[in-house]
Amino acid sequence: MGISEPVSKRNVKINDNFFGYYTRLARDVMIPYQWEVLNDRVDDAEPSHAVKNFRIAAGLEKGDFYGFVFQDSDVAKWLEAVGHSLMTHPDPGREKIADEMIDLMEKAQCSDGYLDTYYIINRKEKRWSNLCECHELYCAGHLIEAAVAYYEATGKDKLLKIACRFADLIDSVFGPEEGKIKGYPGHQEIELALVKLYRATNNPKYLKLSKFFIDERGSEPSYFIHEWEHVRGKVSHWTKKEEPAPNLEYCQAHKPVRLQDKAVGHAVRAVYMYSGMADIAYETGDKDLFDALRRLWLNITKRQMYITGGIGSTRHGEAFTFDYDLPNDTVYAETCASIGLVFFAHRMLKMDLSGEYGDVIEKVLYNLVPGAMSLNGKEFFYVNPLEVWPEACEKNPGRHHVKHRRQKWFSCACCPPNIARLLASLGDYIYSVNQDTLFVHLYIGSEAETGLCGKRVSVRQESKYPYDGEVCFVVSADGPVDFSLALRIPSWCRKYEIYINGERENYEIKNGYAVLNRAWENSDSVRIFMDMPVEIITSNPKVRENAGKVCIMRGPLVYCIEEADNGPNLSDVALCPDSEIKTEKSADLPEGTVVITVKGIRTVDDEWDNDLYRPYRKKIRPVEIKAIPYYLWGNRGEGEMQVWIRAAQ
Amino acid sequence: MGISEPVSKRNVKINDNFFGYYTRLARDVMIPYQWEVLNDRVDDAEPSHAVKNFRIAAGLEKGDFYGFVFQDSDVAKWLEAVGHSLMTHPDPGREKIADEMIDLMEKAQCSDGYLDTYYIINRKEKRWSNLCECHELYCAGHLIEAAVAYYEATGKDKLLKIACRFADLIDSVFGPEEGKIKGYPGHQEIELALVKLYRATNNPKYLKLSKFFIDERGSEPSYFIHEWEHVRGKVSHWTKKEEPAPNLEYCQAHKPVRLQDKAVGHAVRAVYMYSGMADIAYETGDKDLFDALRRLWLNITKRQMYITGGIGSTRHGEAFTFDYDLPNDTVYAETCASIGLVFFAHRMLKMDLSGEYGDVIEKVLYNLVPGAMSLNGKEFFYVNPLEVWPEACEKNPGRHHVKHRRQKWFSCACCPPNIARLLASLGDYIYSVNQDTLFVHLYIGSEAETGLCGKRVSVRQESKYPYDGEVCFVVSADGPVDFSLALRIPSWCRKYEIYINGERENYEIKNGYAVLNRAWENSDSVRIFMDMPVEIITSNPKVRENAGKVCIMRGPLVYCIEEADNGPNLSDVALCPDSEIKTEKSADLPEGTVVITVKGIRTVDDEWDNDLYRPYRKKIRPVEIKAIPYYLWGNRGEGEMQVWIRAAQ
Repeated sequence: MGISEPVSKRNVKINDNFFGYYTRLARDVMIPYQWEVLNDRVDDAEPSHAVKNFRIAAGLEKGDFYGFVFQDSDVAKWLEAVGHSLMTHPDPGREKIADEMIDLMEKAQCSDGYLDTYYIINRKEKRWSNLCECHELYCAGHLIEAAVAYYEATGKDKLLKIACRFADLIDSVFGPEEGKIKGYPGHQEIELALVKLYRATNNPKYLKLSKFFIDERGSEPSYFIHEWEHVRGKVSHWTKKEEPAPNLEYCQAHKPVRLQDKAVGHAVRAVYMYSGMADIAYETGDKDLFDALRRLWLNITKRQMYITGGIGSTRHGEAFTFDYDLPNDTVYAETCASIGLVFFAHRMLKMDLSGEYGDVIEKVLYNLVPGAMSLNGKEFFYVNPLEVWPEACEKNPGRHHVKHRRQKWFSCACCPPNIARLLASLGDYIYSVNQDTLFVHLYIGSEAETGLCGKRVSVRQESKYPYDGEVCFVVSADGPVDFSLALRIPSWCRKYEIYINGERENYEIKNGYAVLNRAWENSDSVRIFMDMPVEIITSNPKVRENAGKVCIMRGPLVYCIEEADNGPNLSDVALCPDSEIKTEKSADLPEGTVVITVKGIRTVDDEWDNDLYRPYRKKIRPVEIKAIPYYLWGNRGEGEMQVWIRAAQ
Repeated sequence: MGISEPVSKRNVKINDNFFGYYTRLARDVMIPYQWEVLNDRVDDAEPSHAVKNFRIAAGLEKGDFYGFVFQDSDVAKWLEAVGHSLMTHPDPGREKIADEMIDLMEKAQCSDGYLDTYYIINRKEKRWSNLCECHELYCAGHLIEAAVAYYEATGKDKLLKIACRFADLIDSVFGPEEGKIKGYPGHQEIELALVKLYRATNNPKYLKLSKFFIDERGSEPSYFIHEWEHVRGKVSHWTKKEEPAPNLEYCQAHKPVRLQDKAVGHAVRAVYMYSGMADIAYETGDKDLFDALRRLWLNITKRQMYITGGIGSTRHGEAFTFDYDLPNDTVYAETCASIGLVFFAHRMLKMDLSGEYGDVIEKVLYNLVPGAMSLNGKEFFYVNPLEVWPEACEKNPGRHHVKHRRQKWFSCACCPPNIARLLASLGDYIYSVNQDTLFVHLYIGSEAETGLCGKRVSVRQESKYPYDGEVCFVVSADGPVDFSLALRIPSWCRKYEIYINGERENYEIKNGYAVLNRAWENSDSVRIFMDMPVEIITSNPKVRENAGKVCIMRGPLVYCIEEADNGPNLSDVALCPDSEIKTEKSADLPEGTVVITVKGIRTVDDEWDNDLYRPYRKKIRPVEIKAIPYYLWGNRGEGEMQVWIRAAQ
């Protein structure tokens, strides 16, 4: 179906049943709360020091750098979230705080444009000496993303100029030309950021530099091996002593990107890189790059993705492991990785109008992302497990990385501001257009305005998602406009009906979209009713961890069972897949939440006394299993949780 | 039933169907093979350098110490195995090699008695400065055990004198007296060794020193914290830099041993300590110590023991985790830990004649120990998993510690010589006596001679174990001797019959033993027929990992399924617990092996194509499941293996 352009959040006003709450939370709670954390003003939260690092770098305070080498990016991601938020919700007080932060950044920037407080404070001479481990280009990328967002929202270009000066310096240091470093970032991010900078400034050198980083990556001889051996004397930033050569798969530098076909290594790096590759493929029409992206996309979504939209099966390197290896308890599924997967999907959608991208974006947005934050917006998961036994999280070191309580902050605090910037820019993900079609990718209540066939068209979407599959659209246009409205039919949806102005309508299904073509009149309405029964889902049998297990879904929502409803030892619960299923409201969860009850069995365990093993006897009792949406787990005290439940067959 | 003394292997001649092979392997293959490895003469095996360290320490060669700080113990354990072997199977050639090694150790010993090559080579001044991490007392313990075994076997006391000189030095350095170090070993071992030395020499100071180490452990203020802070400047032996205070639970020094009630920390340390505690309890009649041991015994065997006899659920610290946490795939279950569990059980049995100890010894001896070695005696497992997915072992770092192939040697090579010394001393574990009873703990074909009621009595045992439950005993005595023959009725045995001279006999059951009392005549025979049906076993429902799963046992043997017989993706296999079970011989496993076939189901997975998740449909096909004894797994090429199998209910 070819290429489309997202309708910018600038022209999309969200007014949604579900995401209204979360986007408001991002604006009213998360952004201010995170500013407090970045300034170390929240008790009991991990110290950040991120703003202070800029003050020290600017010479306004004495002190040492503190935090991870990528601490600056927390401020940048926060500023980006502020930019997104100001675009749709102007707020002079917030803008003033951001402007002051930008003034501080300007003061911290070196005269040649360099801006990374870790190196500015005490390590000036070490710049660019450890690309593999030290995140300078990553932080630069986030700075650029923030600058573009803030510029687009406010029209103010101070931060954009800061970013351009830094990007110009980077362009003078890196590139294929004689005398320049033929390196690339250890943690990808600047690639996609430079494409944003190119689009904001129209300066093609930024696009060229991004393409250089993409093209150079994984070529032989490896820059990272050269750097390890000849630039940093084999010494690791992390251990401060000599270490073996870096693992190139970890940062996807093991082969040229166009030859990669399996998602490997650090999951966030991977999806950020794929996003940058997709930007380059879009801008340049590079077919090889697009083909590689399709392979990588399919490998992730058909082989390495949790049903919640989580990716990354191991904490070791926060990484992908291999096809069908999706352990639920020792899982990683970092929040940032799924957010990066949304970035990747969104970019693929621009080039390849297929419903599968919206399906994955929807999966992440309704399950992993809201699950990664508490209902009050102040506590977060970094790791998003599908099975939690709190005692094991505490007492089995192989599961220490899995927390059963959301945390106020993290020493490595990449995830919370990533959630904030995603939610603050949610308007970008709902619609896209090409010449004659308005695509609806997400059923999020909103008003959107865009140009179609040379005319301005508005659409108002009213959605009862995710608890009801009825969605209504009302078109506003000056007289009849001949265009197509393409509604994504979610992969979970097996039955639906579409009405235009109350009449059943015929439509064409194309790549997962119901395409409604007509000469639209003002006030024409479209109503889609998607059947949303509870479904019992199984995994591909090759997923060892889910053998014999099922999971409950309803619409886009993945459900889970919690100790709060089902008592301890959830692994003892088995679900009867063919039994009657009931849905009901819940008293102890947010209004509107649909909980599901289904019949199951448990063992009769009071006869076990002290034995650990004994001959098999089928001794079971019936139980009623109560499941709640996964995204709400862990909001009612501590306890066990499970997404995949044994099936009683 | 009170106290008994083991019948020494000196008076037990093994002539067994099953262990004949393994003990011969220990003698004829493992001991010579391990000597080659210790001398670095085996290609492709991890380098050992253990003998070379002694040559360097003795001044016969130049060079540096190489290997772990406890490398000496590999030689000591080998020498101990040689001692055990020479006791039952004299071999002048082997004795000569051992004598030469002992001569070398004498040369390496310092004039004050100190003998630890790690410290003798280049670190003399650092002696006793890091008890917590550096294994000096552990190595001393193994040296003592070797010395006692070699002395008892050969009557030669050179190594015993070396050991006494070292023990005397240790006694002068450690103890409650003013000016002595109030420390204890980081890795327990010397405690049980000193009791052996006491018994061999009758010198009570060794018993007293052992008791000091036991009593002092875990007292406040902690010696290890003091040492960390004031003796070694917080610097770790392992990282060579400052590290946080040691984890006292890791080495069971978190509280006084008499107050401990859960098995925690490094599993080998734990069971070695419990063995030493049991020795002290036995020698001193310390009731508090015995009570603590009972609590710890029950905690291990009723809460933290794999069905194979493995202990230690996590590789992190090679440690116990917590009750009912028995993951099959990320398991540790170190070979040495189960061998230590045998030591512990054997010592408990001396004080507490109950069948449960023999049950555990039997479980370890027929499952974990032979499973930890290849059929040729030259390859070993350090970690003994109950579930193996080779691709995950290679590609998921959380399972890298689980090997799917036995290894020729290990850089940390504690396990292979431990197997050798256990098998070479197997005769010690079969029988014990008190005044009027001969206890049979293990059904291992053998001839034993002992004193009973003041007379010499011999018993010949013929056993078809572990594949048949028929065992026969023939008594040899000079005229009638009135004593009891007590036969352990294994916990797996639900039905059995006992005949004396062909007649059904009445007997009393006492603490798990059938006690046959009579005036035994020469040539009296006892025959016990233990029914050995295949049993389908379940775990306590609190063992999360085994929920809905069953395991196949027959007699003492735990069975497993392998990819070689059942194809890949074993987790997809479900066993029908109530279906017909067949036993048969196997063509591709050692003669006599009984394999088990049982009906099961698998999913029909050829319809899955590319999907990762889809709605539940019960689509299964019947399969025949073939199970082999666990101890034989991994001898027919590489592939998946599983002990716990999903039950189709």
